[in-house]
Amino acid sequence: MTTTFAIAIHGGAGTILKSKMTPEREAAIRATLTESLRVGYALLNEGGCALDAVQKAVNVMEDSPLFNAGRGAVFTHDGKNEQDATIMDGFSGQAGSVASVKHIARPIDLARLVMDQSPHVLLMGDGAEKFAVEHGMELVDNKYFYTEQRWEQLQRALAKEQRASDNKGDLSLSEDDKHGTVGAVALDSQGHLAAATSSGGMTNKRYGRVGDSALVGAGTFADDLCAVSTTGHGEFFMRGVVAYDVAALMHYKGLSLAEATDLSVQTKLTDPGGTGGLIAIDKDGNIALPFNTEGMYRGYLYKGSEPMVEIFRE
Amino acid sequence: MTTTFAIAIHGGAGTILKSKMTPEREAAIRATLTESLRVGYALLNEGGCALDAVQKAVNVMEDSPLFNAGRGAVFTHDGKNEQDATIMDGFSGQAGSVASVKHIARPIDLARLVMDQSPHVLLMGDGAEKFAVEHGMELVDNKYFYTEQRWEQLQRALAKEQRASDNKGDLSLSEDDKHGTVGAVALDSQGHLAAATSSGGMTNKRYGRVGDSALVGAGTFADDLCAVSTTGHGEFFMRGVVAYDVAALMHYKGLSLAEATDLSVQTKLTDPGGTGGLIAIDKDGNIALPFNTEGMYRGYLYKGSEPMVEIFRE
Repeated sequence: MTTTFAIAIHGGAGTILKSKMTPEREAAIRATLTESLRVGYALLNEGGCALDAVQKAVNVMEDSPLFNAGRGAVFTHDGKNEQDATIMDGFSGQAGSVASVKHIARPIDLARLVMDQSPHVLLMGDGAEKFAVEHGMELVDNKYFYTEQRWEQLQRALAKEQRASDNKGDLSLSEDDKHGTVGAVALDSQGHLAAATSSGGMTNKRYGRVGDSALVGAGTFADDLCAVSTTGHGEFFMRGVVAYDVAALMHYKGLSLAEATDLSVQTKLTDPGGTGGLIAIDKDGNIALPFNTEGMYRGYLYKGSEPMVEIFRE
Repeated sequence: MTTTFAIAIHGGAGTILKSKMTPEREAAIRATLTESLRVGYALLNEGGCALDAVQKAVNVMEDSPLFNAGRGAVFTHDGKNEQDATIMDGFSGQAGSVASVKHIARPIDLARLVMDQSPHVLLMGDGAEKFAVEHGMELVDNKYFYTEQRWEQLQRALAKEQRASDNKGDLSLSEDDKHGTVGAVALDSQGHLAAATSSGGMTNKRYGRVGDSALVGAGTFADDLCAVSTTGHGEFFMRGVVAYDVAALMHYKGLSLAEATDLSVQTKLTDPGGTGGLIAIDKDGNIALPFNTEGMYRGYLYKGSEPMVEIFRE
């Protein structure tokens, strides 16, 4: 039993520059992040569990067209949306994930359903959607995910690819196309932790690419010591098993949350040339939000405090 | 530079009882495991790299109908075969994985292709097969994977499920249906490590379930200190991030390979009620092959030695 509770969230990391952001867009993003924190906080304040709090906080960002998850998911090369999500309960050690789902408005809810209603951890594609339908979840038409911004983002990526067509087989993407994920971590008044991550993936992605947001240990991890959700260039988080690396550094090396998250971002992300960030909380309510990009949409809210929301590097 | 090299392999863990094994079947399994070791060894002996050795050793088991990977893959609920595989190079830190591929004779070769020829780590399903074709890999008909033994295994699982149809929604499987994976780990004469895992998944699986064999950190991991490949009830390896946990225990807690593998199997697999095992090798050529089931098809071969192959618990 702790005397405190808290929640932290992210809405993606990347080349987020103040000079390129309209005041209207910045205000809308800040408002949605604040709303996400308040929804999670309200649950925690009523004695709700961290698992429900991270799920509901993520739902707010999934429902917004401003973030690359749920409604605002980016388009694949074929003009579709394929989303990944993972939720993990630090108390029970249970987890649920979905990969490449196309007709799920809130992928984190399906990840939760996989965790609660199946003996499996990860379900993918059509099979995951069949599971959703059999458990009463409605599928949405692909049109639900259409936003002009994301469609134009795909057209720019396709045009860039066309210009680079001499360089055949080059699947490289601009930094902006690689990022975008939403996530939440929370500590509840019972002292339990949870983490959730939901992602629309990479713009112009092909070949059924699955990212770290679908993988326990890479993009999401929670146990009784800490909870972690990552965002950024997913392949680096997968090879570095970053979310679990933070937990391992705390458990096995005795590092603090701040030390563990800084070291993991440095050695697993920055040193190998990756970009992104993560949010993490520990059993004592310490919060860390390190990132190595220009900005990361992020926020946190402690028991009895006001929401703190930031976008740019200080 | 080390003066030694070595390879270890597994062909799955489970309820493998001598009383239920015919002498002919046991001899065939031992012969294939020995051949797998010899193929990997030959490469290492010529100065080849650990990455090639684990891939070729896995190929031998994938080509055999005796193991649940490649040719001998088990059937899904729909009578299909959906396979997962991962390969990781400890020297470069690069990795490649495929999930739920249906027409790939040797899934580990496609995982290697993903690692070598794409900027991604994990490709799944039809997209992964499209990538395979575009890179010159032939697809095989589903009939390639038909073996009478696996088909009868599915029929038994379906009949059991039918008998239990009162208990609707119960997706539980017998222990035997959960296991079966092949894998290899190796240390080459340059002192580099690699790991590879290939799996036909669970008999009668549904809903696009993906197992630990597709996930870097869960079923497979390699760096400059150790290489690990797991087999068993995949969901436990995913929640426990077991392959990376072994590496973390060595790096951060300073444990030996034997201590790290024993502790990880105990805390991440046995304590939560899971079954299976793993193979691991470290930079000094130490090998560990712990498991908590009746048996595990396994073997190892050190430079200048004879192949050691075991099936049952000693």
